[in-house]
Amino acid sequence: LKGQKPVYSNRGMTLEQDINITNQYYQEQNMAVIHKKPTPVQIVHVDYPKRSAAVIKEAYFKQPSTTDYNGIYQGRYIDFEAKETKSKHSFPLSNIHTHQIEHMRQVSHHEAICFLIIRFSSYQETFFYPVERLFTHWDQQFDGGRKSIRYETIQKEGYIIPIQYHARVNYLDIIDKYYI
Amino acid sequence: LKGQKPVYSNRGMTLEQDINITNQYYQEQNMAVIHKKPTPVQIVHVDYPKRSAAVIKEAYFKQPSTTDYNGIYQGRYIDFEAKETKSKHSFPLSNIHTHQIEHMRQVSHHEAICFLIIRFSSYQETFFYPVERLFTHWDQQFDGGRKSIRYETIQKEGYIIPIQYHARVNYLDIIDKYYI
Ligand SMILES: [Mg+2]
Ligand SMILES: [Mg+2]
Repeated sequence: LKGQKPVYSNRGMTLEQDINITNQYYQEQNMAVIHKKPTPVQIVHVDYPKRSAAVIKEAYFKQPSTTDYNGIYQGRYIDFEAKETKSKHSFPLSNIHTHQIEHMRQVSHHEAICFLIIRFSSYQETFFYPVERLFTHWDQQFDGGRKSIRYETIQKEGYIIPIQYHARVNYLDIIDKYYI
Repeated sequence: LKGQKPVYSNRGMTLEQDINITNQYYQEQNMAVIHKKPTPVQIVHVDYPKRSAAVIKEAYFKQPSTTDYNGIYQGRYIDFEAKETKSKHSFPLSNIHTHQIEHMRQVSHHEAICFLIIRFSSYQETFFYPVERLFTHWDQQFDGGRKSIRYETIQKEGYIIPIQYHARVNYLDIIDKYYI
């Protein structure tokens, strides 16, 4: 099938671009509605020129207090964060902020399907990593544990996400298999 | 000043402020996790000064393609838009954008709990208005119907949201009664 053919030419694409294309495809196919949240910005000064659009003249990037993506699939609330690492050996926990962990704990408590999408760009491998396993490693780092999750651990505890032509990061496939 | 938000004399609080306080309360009480999405901004130019934070020097407000709020309550995906009107007689449909309607249709299709929160500031009355009823009025406007929804219609088809001390716009109360 054309749509099932693996793509090898996506090296120029960031994980975020791949996910956005995937989400657009899901939406067009009426499968799910998942959006990236806008980058949070602290607006300090805005000009309102006559006869033209307002121009933001001074603003700053804010630390995000939630994850990047959320939405709905088969009535279920979906919530995830996407992270890419160049490391060949491990995923550094410093890539995630404390308030993002807090957010993920909260939505998990309310029965969200919550996970990380982690890409090891050196291997061009993208993993679906359930947030419950992340919490364990996160907590252990404050108890003498590692400050990162080994590649081998993610291989073992996560699920490799199939790459397809339209659904370039087909994470709904993992949700179908293991959650719904 | 042009572009500045009006301040409502009665309580001094905008609907958005009331909802944000309500959501914070829900979160603290571990009842639900609902957030306002950041304002979407098109960033054109960023300065990276030495030894200090990046400054956005030119950016523009973008039309939002989704609603303002979403999140999770009792495992259900929640999605809504909040609108305030000064009109005593009706809610103008021009307050909602076409792509927001599209978004609400899509999430409704996937079984979201989706609604408007409409405040008539002249009466200090705030309504929970199910999106299915909005769709009817929206579609009728292109078929010779009104370009607004009468106050009396919203009274009849919607639910008045109780105002409480902490949960200032206690919309979960309506969801408990009519959805869950
Ligand atoms: Mg991110
Ligand atoms: Mg709005």
